[in-house]
This record gives sequence, C-alpha cells and structure tokens, in this order.
Amino acid sequence: MSAGAPYTLGHLAAAIGATLEGDAGQTVRGVAPLETAGPHDVSFLTGGRYRRQADASRAGAIVAGPDVEGLACAVLRVASPETALITLLRLFHPEPDVPPGIHSLAFVAEGATVDASASVGPFAVIEAGARIGARTRVGALTFVGAGAIVGEDSTLHPGVTVRGSVRIGRRVIVHPGAVLGADGFGYMFDGAGHRKIPQVGGVEIEDDVEIGANTTVDRGTMGDTVIGHGSKLDNLVQVGHNCRVGADVILVAQVGISGSCRIGPRAMLGGQVGLADHGTVGEGAMVAAQSGIPSDVPAGGLWGGSPVRPMSEMRRIWAAEGMLPDLVRKVRALEKRVRELEEGRPA
Amino acid sequence: MSAGAPYTLGHLAAAIGATLEGDAGQTVRGVAPLETAGPHDVSFLTGGRYRRQADASRAGAIVAGPDVEGLACAVLRVASPETALITLLRLFHPEPDVPPGIHSLAFVAEGATVDASASVGPFAVIEAGARIGARTRVGALTFVGAGAIVGEDSTLHPGVTVRGSVRIGRRVIVHPGAVLGADGFGYMFDGAGHRKIPQVGGVEIEDDVEIGANTTVDRGTMGDTVIGHGSKLDNLVQVGHNCRVGADVILVAQVGISGSCRIGPRAMLGGQVGLADHGTVGEGAMVAAQSGIPSDVPAGGLWGGSPVRPMSEMRRIWAAEGMLPDLVRKVRALEKRVRELEEGRPA
Amino acid sequence: MSAGAPYTLGHLAAAIGATLEGDAGQTVRGVAPLETAGPHDVSFLTGGRYRRQADASRAGAIVAGPDVEGLACAVLRVASPETALITLLRLFHPEPDVPPGIHSLAFVAEGATVDASASVGPFAVIEAGARIGARTRVGALTFVGAGAIVGEDSTLHPGVTVRGSVRIGRRVIVHPGAVLGADGFGYMFDGAGHRKIPQVGGVEIEDDVEIGANTTVDRGTMGDTVIGHGSKLDNLVQVGHNCRVGADVILVAQVGISGSCRIGPRAMLGGQVGLADHGTVGEGAMVAAQSGIPSDVPAGGLWGGSPVRPMSEMRRIWAAEGMLPDLVRKVRALEKRVRELEEGRPA
Repeated sequence: MSAGAPYTLGHLAAAIGATLEGDAGQTVRGVAPLETAGPHDVSFLTGGRYRRQADASRAGAIVAGPDVEGLACAVLRVASPETALITLLRLFHPEPDVPPGIHSLAFVAEGATVDASASVGPFAVIEAGARIGARTRVGALTFVGAGAIVGEDSTLHPGVTVRGSVRIGRRVIVHPGAVLGADGFGYMFDGAGHRKIPQVGGVEIEDDVEIGANTTVDRGTMGDTVIGHGSKLDNLVQVGHNCRVGADVILVAQVGISGSCRIGPRAMLGGQVGLADHGTVGEGAMVAAQSGIPSDVPAGGLWGGSPVRPMSEMRRIWAAEGMLPDLVRKVRALEKRVRELEEGRPA
Repeated sequence: MSAGAPYTLGHLAAAIGATLEGDAGQTVRGVAPLETAGPHDVSFLTGGRYRRQADASRAGAIVAGPDVEGLACAVLRVASPETALITLLRLFHPEPDVPPGIHSLAFVAEGATVDASASVGPFAVIEAGARIGARTRVGALTFVGAGAIVGEDSTLHPGVTVRGSVRIGRRVIVHPGAVLGADGFGYMFDGAGHRKIPQVGGVEIEDDVEIGANTTVDRGTMGDTVIGHGSKLDNLVQVGHNCRVGADVILVAQVGISGSCRIGPRAMLGGQVGLADHGTVGEGAMVAAQSGIPSDVPAGGLWGGSPVRPMSEMRRIWAAEGMLPDLVRKVRALEKRVRELEEGRPA
Repeated sequence: MSAGAPYTLGHLAAAIGATLEGDAGQTVRGVAPLETAGPHDVSFLTGGRYRRQADASRAGAIVAGPDVEGLACAVLRVASPETALITLLRLFHPEPDVPPGIHSLAFVAEGATVDASASVGPFAVIEAGARIGARTRVGALTFVGAGAIVGEDSTLHPGVTVRGSVRIGRRVIVHPGAVLGADGFGYMFDGAGHRKIPQVGGVEIEDDVEIGANTTVDRGTMGDTVIGHGSKLDNLVQVGHNCRVGADVILVAQVGISGSCRIGPRAMLGGQVGLADHGTVGEGAMVAAQSGIPSDVPAGGLWGGSPVRPMSEMRRIWAAEGMLPDLVRKVRALEKRVRELEEGRPA
C-alpha cells in the first residue's frame, strides 16, 4: 500500500497529533488494514470488535484510541483513530499534482472563463459563458455547458457532463459519467401522445457535495433542483427535477428520488431506496436499503420496507412473514375445530 | 425565471389562444409556479386543488381554465392551461440556436453522411457509413458508430454513445450518457465457463422517443430491440436485448426490462420496476414503482407489488401486513382457547 | 440478418462439426430464429419446447441435436446446437476489423505504453504510465488513467472511463459508459459533516470478464476491488469498494453490491438484487431478481425475497400473502365464534 517515501513514527505522531508509545525512529512505508498490514505498515484499530485482529496483526505500528491496552507493537495513541486514518491515507497517498492550465487539446469556447489556476484536461469542452473557478480541475472528456458555473477547488473527473443550467459550488467532487442538468421527466398526455413540458430550470450543487459515478441530477422544470451543502451521493443515483436535498444527506448507490421531493438535512437513504414524487424525508431519518417511500417519512428514526414503515414494526412483520404459510394452515385447522365444537354444542 | 424579452399580455393571449381578462398592455418577463411568481411573471392554475395558492400568488397574470372565477389578477382564459404552459415555457425559454455545420474539432469519418443543416459538436465522432439527418444536433463528445442512422430533427445531447447497429428516427431526444446498442447480456455455460453469444442484432428507436440520461438500450441478439413511437424513457433505465416497447410507453427512472420482453402501447412503469425476461405488459397497464413482474401483466388496470398483483388486492395485502404480527399472537391465543374448549367439552 | 457472403451447408457443416442431412451445395446467407428465418437462413432448435416453431419455420436449414427427427428442411446435426449457434453467429457476423495503431486524434501521454498491435480511437486519452496490451482496442472517447494497465486482446468500447488505479486482464470487454476505479463511498461523520475517507486502493478485473454499459466498479479504500475470472456484469450494475466477486459470477442489470462484499464463484444474482455491506453470497447460489440480501446467503440453492429467504419458503410466503386479507377476516370471525362458545360453555 505504500506510495510515497517512508516516514518515521515520530513524523507520523506529529502529523496526527498522537502520543507515540514506541521508537520514534522506526519507519513505515504505508498504511493498511490490520489483516494485510506488514512490519513496514502502520495500521489502525477503530473499535473494540477488531481487537482480535489487532493482536494477530503483523503491523509495525497501530493507531489506537485511549482505552486500548496491551498491543505488542508500537502504538500511536490518539483520541479518534478514524480521523487519524484520514490524515495518514492522505499523507501516504497524496493527491496527484495537476499542473494548472488548459490542455492544448481541450476546447474552451470564446466567452468562457477559466481561472488561471484551474486545469482543463484533453478533449474537455467548456462552452461559452461557462465559468471555472480557481484551482478547479476539469477532467479529460468532460463537458461544461454554456453558462454553467463551477466554483473554486472543485473536481470534475473525466467523462462528466454538466449542462448549461448548472451551478456548482466549492470543493465539490463529481465522479466520471455523472450527468448534471439533463431535462427532468415531464410530459402532458394530450390524447394523441405525450407532449414534452419544456424543462427550463437549473441545478444548484452547494459546497462540499460529492456526486458518484454515473449519477444523474435533473434540472428543474421551473426553478432549481438543489443538492444541499455537504451531501454525498453514491453511484447510479437518480435525483428528479425540482428536488430539494438538504445538507449532509447520504444517498447510497442506486437510490431513486422522483420529482419535487424534499429530503431533510442529515437524512440517510440506503441503496436502491425509492421515493415517489412530492415525497418527503424528515431531518435525520434513516431509511433502510430497498425501501419504498410512497409519500412521507417524518424526522428521525429508522425506517424500512416497501411501502416503508418504522423499522421496528417492519422487523416484526418480516419475522411474522416467515410464519405466514403456517398461519394459513393453523387458521384452517382452527375453523374445523371450532365448527366441530359448534356442532357438538348443546343447542 | 425570465430569459427573453418582456411580453405583453396581449401578445401572450394571442400566442396561446387565450381570452384576456385584464390589460393587454401589461408586460410580464417570465413564467413561474404560483408560489414563486412575482408581479412580472405569468403563472398558471392547472387544477382546483391549487386554488388556494392562486389566491395567495403575487403573479402578474394567471393562465386558468374556463371554470375558475374570482382571481384578483389578470387572467388568460384557455381550455387547457397545461397545453398553454408548454407554449409559454418555450416562448420565454427558446431553445438555444445551434448553427448548422460540423465543428472543426469533430471527427467525421470518410464515408459518413452529415446533412448540411445538421450540427456536430466538438470532439463528436461519426464513424464511416453513419448518417445524420437534416437539422439534427450531435452534441460534443458524442459517438455515432459505423453505419448508425439518425433521422431528422433529432437531438443527441453531449456524451451519448450510439453503436453502429442503431437506427434512430425523427424528433428523437437522447440525453447525456445514454448508451444505445451495446451488446445484450447473453451467455451459454459450457461447463468450463460462460461463453459469449455474439450479439449481432440492432436497435430501432422510432420517431418522437425521448431517452433519459445514462439509460441503456441493448442491441438484439438477432433481430432488433425496438422502442416504439412516442415512448419516453427516464434516466438510468435498462432495456435488454430484443425487447419490444410499444408506442407512447412511459418508463420511469431505474426501470429494468430483461431480454425479449413485450410492453404494450401506453403502458406506464413506475420507478425501479423490474420485468423478468420474456415478460409482457399489456396495453395501457399502469405498474406502480418498485413492482416486480415475474411474467405477464394484462392490458389496463393498476398493478403493484413484487411479485406484482392487481393494485386493489396489493393495497389490502399491505394493510393486512401491518396486522400480521398481531395475527400470529391472536392465532396462538385462539389455539389455546379452542384446546381448552375441546378439553372442557363433554365427551 | 445476413452480413457476409453466402455459405453452402457443406461449409457450415464443416465449420460447426455437424453431420449434414441435406444438400451440401445449398446456400444460406444468414442465421435467424425459427420464427423469422427464411429459405436463405439457417436456424437452430435448442430445445424440445421449440419443436412446434421448427415445424412452422421457413428456414432453409436447421441446426438440431441428436434426438430431433422429422424436420422438413435440411438438418445440420450436432451434439450442442447452442455451441454451434455461437460459431454460426460469428461466421455470418465477423467482428469488424480494427486496424492497429493510434488514431491521429487520440491523445497518448508521454510515458504511456501502447502495444504496436493495439488500436486507439479518436479522442481517446491514455495518460502517463498507462499500458495497453497487444491487440487490445481502446474505443473513441475512452479514458485510461495514469498508471492503469489493460492486458492483451481486450476491448474498451467507446466512452469508457478507466481510472489510474485499475488493472484489467486479458480478453476483457468493457461496454460504453462503464466507470472503473471511481472512489468508493466512504465518509466519517465528525459532528460537523461527513469527512471523506481517501480512497487509495485499486480495481483488479481478471481475464475474460465482461462489464456492461454504464456499470460502475469502485476502487478499494485500501487494497483492491476484484472481479474474478470469467465473471459477467450486465448494464448499470454497482460494485462497491473492496468487494471480491469470484470467478464466473453473473450479475444481472442494476444489481447493487455494497462495500466489502464477497461473492462466491458461479453465483448468479438476478436483476436489481441488492447486497448490504460486508454481505456474502456462497458459491453457486442463485438469487432471484429484486432480492435484498441483508447479510449472508450460503452456497448453492435458490433464494428470493427482501429480506432474502430460500426460494421454496419465499414462494409459499408469496402464495400465503394473497390470503392475508382473508386471513385477518377469518381470525376476527373465529375470535367471535370462540367467544360465543366460551360464553355458552357450561361453567
């Protein structure tokens, strides 16, 4: 797992603010999980349930929390091993340096604005009126439509499509194949066929959002589709026109959000969850994978099933479901026995 | 929401065939929903349930049907406000003018035919033998394979992939990331592994079809996969090899249609519906979101659930499902009480 | 269906190792299913259930197994008609010849290695350190990131994105729009927001794998995501970080595999199946479409439902589900009758 130069444990302790229990001069070359770490790797123990793996690990050093004792190797003691792991991964795997500038094979239309510190890859297309912010990277083969705006320090990976009605904030990451700002799905049946309702709204992607590969976020019919600050969308997610996704929302892969939905801040939708049009999910609600939400889920709590119910109720239903064939037989038998009792009853 | 020049209500009334109740010289600059419209917007009232919003609206004018009375602002009276809305949206948001011609950075192979009135964007690829019809737009970074045919007045947005076996009709719209004509999913297990069955058929997209972003329509194994006239496919839909989708069908986002399915005209499949291979959906059938169709759904009616059932039946099942854990307890109690009755019964 | 020159039945018999019952000099020009074949087509009978279509077929010749008798047309007798079909399809529809070499409009960075027998299409991008093996085809508009490796005889269709952390084996086929090696979906909530966990691992695609259109396979957080030898992934499939998909696995369209899952060799997951993170599917297990796997499915057997159960059990539940509303009524009636019996019982 090592990609950079070796580091001493002393250097790592300083980088992550750890107390070192071991030799500050010992070197490691990478970071790896407990199972695969070797003597030249630093590993990490993020919870008590991994203690057994920590004892069996061949890691040269382990990042651990305050309450872990008796590890055989060097220990980098921190308050939060998870936070330290983020720092260590970035240290050993620095983001590749992308030199600023527009690649000679990119096409930047007249009237587009690309900050001098931004980079634009080969065969990228930036149409007229589009603006690319400082230090932002536009990958190879990525399309930014006329008038679209991309803020500072954002990354559009290769093969992204951003249509002209889209505004993207700062520190946003968009993965390959994502399509932002395609037309929403709106028609009126006039007796002869489905007539297209022009989709003239936009998309607003707020700061610190991450959009997964091949995910689609449609433009509004009128007004915007909004993805709130800090929200994270996994791969192959669909967000329909005029949805308002709040801040710090998690949408796991293949979630489908119909048009005009509202999702409250910090809600989490598991993989393949579906939400019907005009549906709502309240703040902080957690919805289990494959759930179907026909209308509304209130704030908080854990939800599951299709149609969705409180998870505790749904778990009882799933358990009872297994007894259902037996229940049918039992009721049939009961009916026979009751009939016999009724017939035997003195009139 | 305003994008073009301001229009007088008199001009709008003429454009949509409305009777104006108000000042023909009053100007508006955009069209907007009742909630967000301001004094310089025209809005629309498409049904009685929005009457309250109409009364509260700050809109300068409202497009309304014949039976609406007592609105405070100017009224543009029409038979169908929905139809008028389509006209108004296009009026205020005209489609961007794309000049005809092949961009100097496009690649059009020798032996490809591009009509002089068509446009081809930067880094588009048109392979040998492909034909692009009159007034059709091929977006930047879009690929049209060898021998593929695209009819007149169609739009391939940026980042579309059309493989060589595909024929596309007139007035078709294909959104970014859609893939038309990739190989169907066909293998034969020969004991040692899955051997690929060559996929040599085509795809036929009939006139007036719209294909959503990142949707995939596979070529037939032999013969064609067909998307019928006027059908609309949302984003991230999968249509397998040799499917025949009828006319004016609606497939909502993330629907998955396995190989060799038949879908009748005017059927509507909700989001995330799945249809097993060789399955059929009859004319005009409506299938609720997340339904699973193991074989066949007849014409007409409303269907839901996985496996799918008539919606009325499925609704009763969903309601009863909530009583299931209680039912298990009740049956257990009944068994005890009946046993006691049986034991107490005079022999 | 004919694409090449006509062939005599004698030639075809030699090509597929068949015994010819008919005129060796008779010519056919294509291969087609029984229903659509004409006198100049060869067709095939792959199972007894198609016998009626074979009798009604207008095919000039039929490929059939050893136990089929009494066909009216010429017969090409083989042990396995399915295997013969693969050969015939390839014979009548040879893969288009792609001349080796780098297209003048491709961008191959300094430090990338492209074998002289490989082909690279227009507007393809091969970044520094990437390696393209012998006879491999890189389609137009396809991106291969810095350091990525593609083995021999593989095909990356147009519009594919391969990020730098990916290693692809031999004879691999990747369809348009597929994204290999995008970041996995990993965050740590630190109270203020979701902090991104750097995704620094890779993707290993072993030999003979096929990856469908718009499918996504994420790179590992640390270590690799692996797609095993001979596995076939349909369109719009999601494979999360650090999954290990075994050999000869079938993942049908829109399957979603969360992070760190293990799928055993020869397992088959039907369309839209979902697998929760750290879930496992045992060797050879078959999981029906739309199933949801919350944790583990053992080897072998047929599974269905969400949450998943043995298919035989699930089938009984689905049948009983239809009786559930009736069951609720019956239990209510039984309670009344038992109460009456209890009240009528002599004290």
